[in-house]
Parts: sequence; structure tokens; C-alpha cells
Amino acid sequence: MDLTKPAVGIIGSGSWATAMIKMLEDNKTDKSVYWWVRNRETADYIRTYRHNPNYLSAVTVKIPKRHIHSDVRSVIGHASIVMLNTPAAFLKDALKGVTPEMLEGKIVVSAIKGIIPDENQIVGDFLQERYGIPIERIAVISGPCHAEEVSLEKLSYLTVASQDTDAATRVAAVIGNRYIKTIVSDDIYGTEYAAVLKNIYAVAGGICHGIGFGDNFQAVLVSNAIREMAHFVNAVHPIERDIKESAYLGDLLVTAYSQFSRNRTFGTMIGKGYSVRSAQLEMNMVAEGYYASNGIQQICTKLGIELPICQAVYQVLYRNASPATEMRLLAEKLT
Amino acid sequence: MDLTKPAVGIIGSGSWATAMIKMLEDNKTDKSVYWWVRNRETADYIRTYRHNPNYLSAVTVKIPKRHIHSDVRSVIGHASIVMLNTPAAFLKDALKGVTPEMLEGKIVVSAIKGIIPDENQIVGDFLQERYGIPIERIAVISGPCHAEEVSLEKLSYLTVASQDTDAATRVAAVIGNRYIKTIVSDDIYGTEYAAVLKNIYAVAGGICHGIGFGDNFQAVLVSNAIREMAHFVNAVHPIERDIKESAYLGDLLVTAYSQFSRNRTFGTMIGKGYSVRSAQLEMNMVAEGYYASNGIQQICTKLGIELPICQAVYQVLYRNASPATEMRLLAEKLT
Repeated sequence: MDLTKPAVGIIGSGSWATAMIKMLEDNKTDKSVYWWVRNRETADYIRTYRHNPNYLSAVTVKIPKRHIHSDVRSVIGHASIVMLNTPAAFLKDALKGVTPEMLEGKIVVSAIKGIIPDENQIVGDFLQERYGIPIERIAVISGPCHAEEVSLEKLSYLTVASQDTDAATRVAAVIGNRYIKTIVSDDIYGTEYAAVLKNIYAVAGGICHGIGFGDNFQAVLVSNAIREMAHFVNAVHPIERDIKESAYLGDLLVTAYSQFSRNRTFGTMIGKGYSVRSAQLEMNMVAEGYYASNGIQQICTKLGIELPICQAVYQVLYRNASPATEMRLLAEKLT
Repeated sequence: MDLTKPAVGIIGSGSWATAMIKMLEDNKTDKSVYWWVRNRETADYIRTYRHNPNYLSAVTVKIPKRHIHSDVRSVIGHASIVMLNTPAAFLKDALKGVTPEMLEGKIVVSAIKGIIPDENQIVGDFLQERYGIPIERIAVISGPCHAEEVSLEKLSYLTVASQDTDAATRVAAVIGNRYIKTIVSDDIYGTEYAAVLKNIYAVAGGICHGIGFGDNFQAVLVSNAIREMAHFVNAVHPIERDIKESAYLGDLLVTAYSQFSRNRTFGTMIGKGYSVRSAQLEMNMVAEGYYASNGIQQICTKLGIELPICQAVYQVLYRNASPATEMRLLAEKLT
């Protein structure tokens, strides 16, 4: 492998993965890009028509046809930087057949914002435990960044976090471009947990919107949510950080307030009375906040951390609590 | 004057003043409410039809007809709590003929979120200096709270700040009701400056929206804005505070993200190419952020404080800078 020329492998073919393909192509660094597209028909379609038929179909895919594979091991084999970009719930399945040896020496980047179901682990912990990847070779990419706006080339800021600044810098160097600014951080745990939590808060915002609360309440909810987030990340990984930075507060805001947020949309449907099952069917997309809610609840129980907003969402999604009653009770606790 | 029964005088008849009339009426405390409605025709209309013809006209005004005056001295004379609720630019004019003696012994509350033009002072400082009101008898009411949502009885949280907790508590006691929750704070300066600054940030957000930046950038802008706000209030009034509380961050969010924000609308028009003059004519409302921009700029110059976002807005509004160029330059400074 030519170590001077990075080779990036994207694992996943949803909207965020497709946006990342575009970012990488619009980045001027000399590099190779490989793409794992699991579904063979989809992979064929992309090779033939140069567009992802399912997500961000306006994006023209310029990477060589032979770099698009349906075998994940082939993409990982070529890559020096492996970017994981599936829903958290599908990651284990996506990496089936991949051994720790295949990931040796590579930088593994998580662009996933979720909790691995069953394990109740963030992706960073999962990669260390299951694949023995040292923490210094793991990085996390976080927003505030909706994939839809990347496809429109709207100015966006991404944070790349790793305990090894050199690794984070190498990742940042291949994704930054004229509309993507990169920020390098050493707070991999805080960044990843914030990205997970914000989806739960977006669900909470959606539920409150769905039951008829207005913008005044939403602002109070979000201002409480960022304090709750600070409390949680300081409990699980106490280092000096400013939770008001873009990777934490910015990421929360774009998710809680944006029209593109599927977590918020999911919450709104729940607030309006849909069941979890019917909201998921209707949306035809995974709302990470749903799985994150259960995962964070388990972590909180284990560590004895109180997160009133997350707990209210958990009660509604997993314990059949009435959205209106639960949010009224929550409102009493907010300041 | 019966000291056991509070008498509240509302000075102003815009949408926020009208919302406050409604809050006071829906509050269960035994009290009298007086209302200064400057325009005699409007006052007559309200006495006859029990609705403000110009703002929040869905609100039914239930206070006795004889409590609605067009003479400000009469309303102040009756009141033990005077609530100022005009645009900052009109306050001096509203208080014409009012002497320091007339305000003696009363709690004076500012629900104004702006800078007094010419003086470049927040209302609290102006009241102390011009009327000799001791700081312990001044309070500030702050959101996050859009008047429109009060008229819809949407659950909202108001912060009442005064260096005298007893004064703040007395004010909170007359405005809280089933849809208005009150929070008492001792940070009168921080609360008032935050309320002024957030309007400038909402204008900034509008300008960025107007020139075509998206939600991803907006989230970065707001996350930088709250850090800039913290920097400013800590410079002018350094006490222990959490800028992530509702009165600071919440108030910024509701203004920067809400559809009701006139400051944001004003900024959007500027970003789209309207001149300041034509945007103001078109809106037929005062965008406090316009005056605040100049006031804060003068304070920053005097104190040597750097606020990149506020300064960019000032360049656009007062120095004829191109919105697109100025915001591109600003974007380089954000993280």
C-alpha cells in the first residue's frame, strides 16, 4: 500500500455515506476512494448511472467503477482510512466476515451517530472491544452537518475527533474542501456521546412539537438538553471541554431545529399519536434516537446518572407512557 | 396605596405589552392592572371592544375600562410595579413628563430588550442614571418567550432578574400562571445584555439565511454566538453564571430559530439585498437588533471587547458592507 497516498474506504450507502463520497471527491488531496455498497443492484446502478438511486440522488459519483464493491472485505483491504457509515443497528452485520487482522494498521473512523443495540456501546468502545483497535487509531466525525446540505454544497463544519491528533488531522485532510471546514479535536468520547444524545433530544423536541408545545418551550427544552448533555459526558469522560462548541451544541441545534432531522420527525409522529412501529414504517428510515434512547437508559442505570429528558423519551418509546403526560411531568423539572 | 395588593402598570401597547396584560389577567394573585396606551383612539378602541386593534388582537382585555389611560403619569401614579414595555428607541419619549419622584418606592421592571439609542445604555443603567432608581428596585423580564405564543397559551418560561431577590419574587408572583412558569435570578446585567445581544445574533442568522447559507452553518453560527455572548457578559459583569440557562441560551434560540422573530426576518431581508430603510418600511415594526447593533458596537469599542459576529452585523447595517462578503469573512473566524 502506498502510504503517502491515502486510500479511503466508505462503508455504507445511505445519505450520509453518499454525502461523504461527494466531500471526498471535492477534496483536492491526491487519494483513492473505495465504496462498499452492499446491495449488488444498487452498486450496479451506481456504476452505470453514477448516482445513488436511493439517497442524495443529485450527487454525481465520480470514483472509478471498479472502486465500488459489494464485498466489504475488498473495500477494507484497499483502504488506509476506513470510514464506517451505516446505521448503528446495522454495523455488526456490515462487518460480518471482517477480522481484527483486516483492520490492523488502519485508521478507523466512525461517522455513525448511535449506540450498537444489544451491546449498548458507542462505536468507539465497540471497535476497541470487538476488533482490538487501539483508541489512537479510532476517530469520530461529527457535525453539525445534514447530508442534504452537503449535496447542495452549503458551507458546513465537521469536527474530527481522535485521541491521536495526527490521526484526526489525516482524516480532516481528506474531507475538507471549499464548502466543508474541518475542526480537529481530541475529545473522541465526548464527541461521540454528544452525537448519540442529540438524537434523543431531537426525538424529545419532536414529541413536544407533536403534542402542541411551541417554540418558547422548545428553546427551554434545548437549553436544558445541552446542560443535561454536559452532565452526562462529564460523568462518563471527565476532561476539560466547552460543550458550547460546534461538535456538541451545534450538532444538537442542527438536529433539534432542522427540517431535515429524521429523529425530530420521528418524535413528532410519536407526539401526534403514532405508535413506534407505525412511525418507523411510515418514515422508512432508521431514527437513531430510538435505539440510542434504550442504550443511554441502560448506561445511565448502570452508572447512576439522572437525565430527565432522556428518561422521559425512554418512558414514551419503551414503556408506553403517554407522550403528553410524560412531557408535562418533564416540564416541571426544567428551568 | 394598599401595599398588600400589588398594582401593576404596563407602559406600552405593542405585542409584548399585550401578551403581558394577558399573563397578568390569567395570574390568580389579587391585584390591580393599569395600562398605558399612548394613542387615544387605540385606548378608546380597547375600552370599547376589549381587544388591542394592532397587536395580538385575539387577546380579550378584561381589566376595568378606567384602568386604561393615555397619560403615562396616571398609570405610574397608580402602580407599585411599573413594567416598561415599549421599544427601547421610544422609551425616553414614553417617559416624557415622568419625574424621578414619581417612580420613588416602586419596582421598575424592564421588559424591553434593547439599547437606548444615543445613550448606548441598557435600560437598567438608563433607569439608574436618569431616574436615580436604586438597582435593587429594578428588575428585568426575559424569555425565551414570543408574545404570539403567550396569546395561544403555549407553555413558556420567563426569567425575572433583580439584584434584590425579593423584588424579583414579587414580580414573578404576579405574572406566573398555568402556562407561564417563572424563574428568579439575581443576574440583572447578564440577563439584560443577553436579551440585547440575542437580537443582533438573530439579525446575523437572518442575513446568513438571506444570502443562502443553510441549517448546518446556522448551527455553527449560534454555537459561536453563545460563546461570544458569554465572553461579552463576563467582560462587562463578571459573576458566576451558566450561559446555557434558559434566560441566555434559551432566549437566543427562540429568537434565532423562530418563525415569529422580527429580528431574524429583518436580517433575512438585508441578506436578500433590501436596504435597511426599505426592510424597516416593509416590516412596519422595529427590529431591536438594528439599534442594539450600534449600541453594542460603541460599548465594545469603549471597552476593547472583540465580538466578531456583532461586528460583522454592524459592518453590514451601518457601514454598507456587502452581506455576502462580510459573512464569508466571518465564517473564516468561526469554529
